[in-house]
Amino acid sequence: MPHAIEDAPALESGTLRVTPLGGLGEIGRNMAVFEYDGKLLIVDCGVLFPEEHQPGVDLILPDFSPIRDRLDDVIGVVLTHGHEDHIGAVPYLLRLRADIPLIGSQLTLALIEAKLKEHRISPYTLAVKEGQRERMAPFDLEFVAVNHSIPDALAVFIRTPAGNVLHTGDFKMDQLPLDGRITDLRAFARLGEEGVDLFMTDSTNSDVPGFTPVEREIGGVLESVIAKAPRRVIVASFSSHVHRVQQVLDAAHANGRRVALLGRSMVRNMGIAAELGYLKVPDGILIDHRKASELPDDRIVYMSTGSQGEPMAVLARMANLEHQVEVGEGDTVILASSLIPGNENAVYRVINGLTALGANVVHKGNARVHVSGHAAAGELLYCYNIVRPKNVMPVHGEARHLVANQRLAVDTGVPIENTVLAENGTIIDLKDGAIRVVGQLDLGEVYVDGSTVGAITDADLKDRRILAEEGFISIFVAVDAQTGRAVVGPEIHARGFAPDDSVFDDVIPQVLKALTEAAENGTRDSHAFSQVVRRTVGRWVNTRHRRRPMIVPVVVIA
Amino acid sequence: MPHAIEDAPALESGTLRVTPLGGLGEIGRNMAVFEYDGKLLIVDCGVLFPEEHQPGVDLILPDFSPIRDRLDDVIGVVLTHGHEDHIGAVPYLLRLRADIPLIGSQLTLALIEAKLKEHRISPYTLAVKEGQRERMAPFDLEFVAVNHSIPDALAVFIRTPAGNVLHTGDFKMDQLPLDGRITDLRAFARLGEEGVDLFMTDSTNSDVPGFTPVEREIGGVLESVIAKAPRRVIVASFSSHVHRVQQVLDAAHANGRRVALLGRSMVRNMGIAAELGYLKVPDGILIDHRKASELPDDRIVYMSTGSQGEPMAVLARMANLEHQVEVGEGDTVILASSLIPGNENAVYRVINGLTALGANVVHKGNARVHVSGHAAAGELLYCYNIVRPKNVMPVHGEARHLVANQRLAVDTGVPIENTVLAENGTIIDLKDGAIRVVGQLDLGEVYVDGSTVGAITDADLKDRRILAEEGFISIFVAVDAQTGRAVVGPEIHARGFAPDDSVFDDVIPQVLKALTEAAENGTRDSHAFSQVVRRTVGRWVNTRHRRRPMIVPVVVIA
Repeated sequence: MPHAIEDAPALESGTLRVTPLGGLGEIGRNMAVFEYDGKLLIVDCGVLFPEEHQPGVDLILPDFSPIRDRLDDVIGVVLTHGHEDHIGAVPYLLRLRADIPLIGSQLTLALIEAKLKEHRISPYTLAVKEGQRERMAPFDLEFVAVNHSIPDALAVFIRTPAGNVLHTGDFKMDQLPLDGRITDLRAFARLGEEGVDLFMTDSTNSDVPGFTPVEREIGGVLESVIAKAPRRVIVASFSSHVHRVQQVLDAAHANGRRVALLGRSMVRNMGIAAELGYLKVPDGILIDHRKASELPDDRIVYMSTGSQGEPMAVLARMANLEHQVEVGEGDTVILASSLIPGNENAVYRVINGLTALGANVVHKGNARVHVSGHAAAGELLYCYNIVRPKNVMPVHGEARHLVANQRLAVDTGVPIENTVLAENGTIIDLKDGAIRVVGQLDLGEVYVDGSTVGAITDADLKDRRILAEEGFISIFVAVDAQTGRAVVGPEIHARGFAPDDSVFDDVIPQVLKALTEAAENGTRDSHAFSQVVRRTVGRWVNTRHRRRPMIVPVVVIA
Repeated sequence: MPHAIEDAPALESGTLRVTPLGGLGEIGRNMAVFEYDGKLLIVDCGVLFPEEHQPGVDLILPDFSPIRDRLDDVIGVVLTHGHEDHIGAVPYLLRLRADIPLIGSQLTLALIEAKLKEHRISPYTLAVKEGQRERMAPFDLEFVAVNHSIPDALAVFIRTPAGNVLHTGDFKMDQLPLDGRITDLRAFARLGEEGVDLFMTDSTNSDVPGFTPVEREIGGVLESVIAKAPRRVIVASFSSHVHRVQQVLDAAHANGRRVALLGRSMVRNMGIAAELGYLKVPDGILIDHRKASELPDDRIVYMSTGSQGEPMAVLARMANLEHQVEVGEGDTVILASSLIPGNENAVYRVINGLTALGANVVHKGNARVHVSGHAAAGELLYCYNIVRPKNVMPVHGEARHLVANQRLAVDTGVPIENTVLAENGTIIDLKDGAIRVVGQLDLGEVYVDGSTVGAITDADLKDRRILAEEGFISIFVAVDAQTGRAVVGPEIHARGFAPDDSVFDDVIPQVLKALTEAAENGTRDSHAFSQVVRRTVGRWVNTRHRRRPMIVPVVVIA
């Protein structure tokens, strides 16, 4: 195992080792491994969504190789909240050992259990609440309420003989949250008094000055947009954002409209949230989407997925008139969501499509219909001043976020040498209140594509990018090895290159000539003949078309 | 010619016909054709940059087919300013007829001439100035100064017996521009008094509330960032943004630093701008980039390209340590530019790379180092109220921009029936102060890829997208047509699909069996055998791998 944790220096006794496997240098696949006295504790196990240079990839997992041989030592996985970038890789971890206990709040566990059901895994779980303390030797865990864009999020305080770690998970500090469940700064203060030797804190919005506005502000905006809407209203948001959906239900209720939920994940998650009491559904407000069309246009709100322009989600299908709800003149569409970087073109395509159909599109660019789920710089400063950590390790962010968060820690008085800008695979040891970087694992990207996990490599993605940019030309020819004469072929075909294969009439004689010349010069094996074909076609296409398609020669010795 | 302008209803005498060929429903390739009395006048001829669903495409041109048979009737092309989305397609138009006169301001013509030189075309030009009136029968043109993010931009007023058109080009209304050359609202007022029958106006920022801040504000910010910078400063911006570069030169000068220009287009364009007097270069401030490294770090500013994260431009190469200027701890990088939608991931990758190298990265997300070049909603309201046009046609924008601009016109009192939401190819006739949509041409996308223009089609792009998402599997086999027995092969190869071809060992027997069975059932020709191979491999890959690569079977009858 090239990446095994054993490659790092041996762990001295009485030392806590922290190894982030994901979430550093990227927004997604958050995962950190804590090791003490031969036992491993994992905090979060999420997925990363691919960027445009990773075409065809469905998901990216943390590289589990450092713990692959140590799975029996894992005492549990703490899940801080139910977002995909914190729980999405759990099914893949449990495929390796199904009985690893999952520890989290009621809603978090309900969401991961629903997901595991699809993978036909039924997990061992331990439901915990804020304020609860659980001894999972050698770790002593305490859970702290934090506010985020999904209910029931937790920070975790990890006590070990080597020192204590406070890991925030994702959080913000909305002082007037809908459910009254604020980030528990009194607990942060108490734990700070006890001593936080390492503070691992959410960096996502650390480069945003000031404070994230309160979620409650959105309710008023939604209500006034819905009140003025002459016909149907369609609201798109994240399918796990219970409080956003709550505000839509309330705004619809206040306006005498009923609500139909659209999209599989929206229906599933809101079912779970309502059943567990996180979503308060006003009596009789929900209506099956198949019956909604029977209501007058000004009596209905559709609540849907697709706020990121995902082509298969409800909203994009509406924009292309491929959905049963046919958007038209006078309809109002609200994108009550962030715009995740990389999705801009897709989202604007959807907005343009809906606008062209006559809809009035309301989004965060023209109205306060979204606030972030993460603490901005001002909030993080409060945190640092309340916790007064000995050491700080910014987590959950790209380089620009981690550096900005480090600066905030330093601005509040944390010595810069007590901060660590880690990467995935950086190994940090904590002992006697001091941190030390002791190694760096070389981790890889684990791509999920279709049913395969890890089969697609970076080399395949490079091939795909070339194929996307340039297409390919394949040349098949069976030759007589002695003379280089073509017995079958050459058959030349291309895709993504030119409208038809007749453009190759030109190069066929050149290929035939190059093969016989090669044979005259002593070439005999198929690989060498292939290289001759590749060079001949490559030179022709480059000179003639100034293009560089992938060239795939197959020469068989007849 | 399926798209010929002749497909539209015949043009009645005394009528002005307007046909936009680009720039509607998109940001880019602006081009409009005006026809009167058998003559054609073109305003702008720009390119559109591809999005991620158009992989490998270099540029997208307006579809010239409606005027292809009418080139001899073209009396000239008015170029409103020197940006690529207004002049970039001129070389491709002049390839069709090299002596079409180009009409524009001094700087605009200098920039297009430099570009045409690379295409080895030397054009006929007519340089015009604001206030100038030129009779180009049957059109009578008057040029009006407008302020934009490039100097010397012009609006054009087109007088015809059928009515008058005011076309703004791209513009904003900075009231304190660096060069003192404001958008000439006095002229707009005068022309409004005379009568603007059709007002074609820039929609790019019509959905942005309020007013675009003045360019001048940036100078102070640049100066203070540079004053505080401990080591080198690198500023990236657009290579045509003369006033932005001017402010960098001035800020460097004020701080006792010298400036080295980096990037081919930056050097070329600033050379032109300085020579023509648009850029005022303080004495002795410029230094050759090869000598700049000899200066102390706090005496130098590099002015570069690459603010959009373009992988081959200076800034991205710096972020990857692939440039001679090695960015390090204490350096300051300023992205003095917008972030064009679709470029976010690329730009953030560059920011993360530079941050990880230790640079302090200043960008519009954390400082006022950019203002837009386009009029926001507030400015457009002024325009409508000053011009008081009879009819309005928003141009230069996606659907969401055009609709927002239409609303502004309506808000100022233009009757909605006197506004037109056109698409590329919409044919609008103007007569006696009234507009009428009389037809819609079905225009295509003309893709430039390498040296080919129009060779790549949407079908090829669809193939490329499949190749990007899934890769391909090619199967070659030569069969005996009577028995279906494989004489050569099957040779199965894949790219972008799996790390090696051994995965196909499984399916080869299935292919052999399917071929002989097909022959038993009477299959004899290569196309039918190919279909058999495609189905067999397709079914296998879908069931076994849950993937859908492109399958490229080639069956030869031996």
